[in-house]
Amino acid sequence: MRRPVFRTTRRIEFADTDMAGIVHFANFFRFMEAAEVEFLRSRGLSVALPWKGERLGFPRVAAACDYLQPARFEDVLVVTVKIRRIGRKSVTYGFEFSQNGQIVARGKITSVCCRVLEDHQLEPIPIPAALRRRLKSV
Amino acid sequence: MRRPVFRTTRRIEFADTDMAGIVHFANFFRFMEAAEVEFLRSRGLSVALPWKGERLGFPRVAAACDYLQPARFEDVLVVTVKIRRIGRKSVTYGFEFSQNGQIVARGKITSVCCRVLEDHQLEPIPIPAALRRRLKSV
Amino acid sequence: MRRPVFRTTRRIEFADTDMAGIVHFANFFRFMEAAEVEFLRSRGLSVALPWKGERLGFPRVAAACDYLQPARFEDVLVVTVKIRRIGRKSVTYGFEFSQNGQIVARGKITSVCCRVLEDHQLEPIPIPAALRRRLKSV
Amino acid sequence: MRRPVFRTTRRIEFADTDMAGIVHFANFFRFMEAAEVEFLRSRGLSVALPWKGERLGFPRVAAACDYLQPARFEDVLVVTVKIRRIGRKSVTYGFEFSQNGQIVARGKITSVCCRVLEDHQLEPIPIPAALRRRLKSV
Repeated sequence: MRRPVFRTTRRIEFADTDMAGIVHFANFFRFMEAAEVEFLRSRGLSVALPWKGERLGFPRVAAACDYLQPARFEDVLVVTVKIRRIGRKSVTYGFEFSQNGQIVARGKITSVCCRVLEDHQLEPIPIPAALRRRLKSV
Repeated sequence: MRRPVFRTTRRIEFADTDMAGIVHFANFFRFMEAAEVEFLRSRGLSVALPWKGERLGFPRVAAACDYLQPARFEDVLVVTVKIRRIGRKSVTYGFEFSQNGQIVARGKITSVCCRVLEDHQLEPIPIPAALRRRLKSV
Repeated sequence: MRRPVFRTTRRIEFADTDMAGIVHFANFFRFMEAAEVEFLRSRGLSVALPWKGERLGFPRVAAACDYLQPARFEDVLVVTVKIRRIGRKSVTYGFEFSQNGQIVARGKITSVCCRVLEDHQLEPIPIPAALRRRLKSV
Repeated sequence: MRRPVFRTTRRIEFADTDMAGIVHFANFFRFMEAAEVEFLRSRGLSVALPWKGERLGFPRVAAACDYLQPARFEDVLVVTVKIRRIGRKSVTYGFEFSQNGQIVARGKITSVCCRVLEDHQLEPIPIPAALRRRLKSV
């Protein structure tokens, strides 16, 4: 199956930069998450999701990023989101940030599908079939 | 050579949490950087370093984190910092966050030694020998 | 002179929230700055501005916000920006965040026009006349 | 009644800075909150507080800061916390940041005592008498 790519953009804000004059590396993880949320929204989903009387959350179990070029204030990055793997309980997304055709950064995030219990406790569960279908409906 | 471990602590602040009631995953990268800076300071170094009339910076080329347990407001995490690899131009640090003897997260960051030029431009250079010695003097 | 209002929107991201399930109050200051930057961009200006061979910056001397309603994940806030006062060296902006016609927050930021010197030193200067005209050209 | 002052310190981290080479102004609000939490902890209290079978929260209704001097990476600021006013439902804290005897910033935060209901809803209530006493026991 060919998986078309979800694409959005992100404009760098002043508060995203650090004293090196470039985007602070930790912020790319916020950018990935925001792109993931946009991707999910385009499928009627979210990272905080009411689901058949329960609440689902997707805490992260792994995140990584490679930085190829610095990004700077007012840069408008193109962000692509791909599902790289859907396991029984987890999803792995791949992200690519680029500008003027040059890759700025590449990252990935793995989340686990969880029921959100009282007091913010989290219990991993298999991804519901209907949700899995929507994730794949790209 | 046995590499002793640098150890510090980090208390979770309210602003570090998200609506899932746990530390937002991106913040662990800030915590790693702060622990790295403390580690460097203990050797008379920094991530922003005057060096023989020049300024050195250490932009990140890679960062990753595995999340094993959620951390919550007011938790006091023990953070360990290890040098995992010193290349010709790069350093890779390994980090471990734990609480009550349980691992909360494991991460790593790879930085490249750069001269900071005018207008925040960055030029990768071999790590100066004296700096390398101090990094290793653990 | 009637001062028309600059208007933009801001969608709340997951990382903007805290464990109370609402937008962390400090983030409204980032939102104000981003709206200010958009406002300035609409006039060909910025908060980091090359100007006749020099670099101008606008460090903040005061910021304040009143919070009337909590904002939550995925809310899309309408943000209005007004110039409330232009002094000899300073500008004060007023901001209003609303949702469904209800005010969420009201804030203001006062910045001082500065020449950015070597090593990030900042020297306050009178706002150049041409810049002042563009700020007022609403 | 003389109100002694609660005092702590805050070391500026790399991620606290922006491309102007100074602490981004929004971060002072995180610093104030962290100092408030430390102050509360010193009285056995918190901003997220179990209280007689209920949960109390202290959402902010107002926050303000005046910036007198820039703060930079690795600066260690002295932070003082004072209760400026305790109303029936609200508390106003005053903060002062200084370095080498020079004031860097002055701020204040007003919070309202709330019961935290299901789904993160917040209901303002009078500050319980016992809590009020502990706040005042300075």
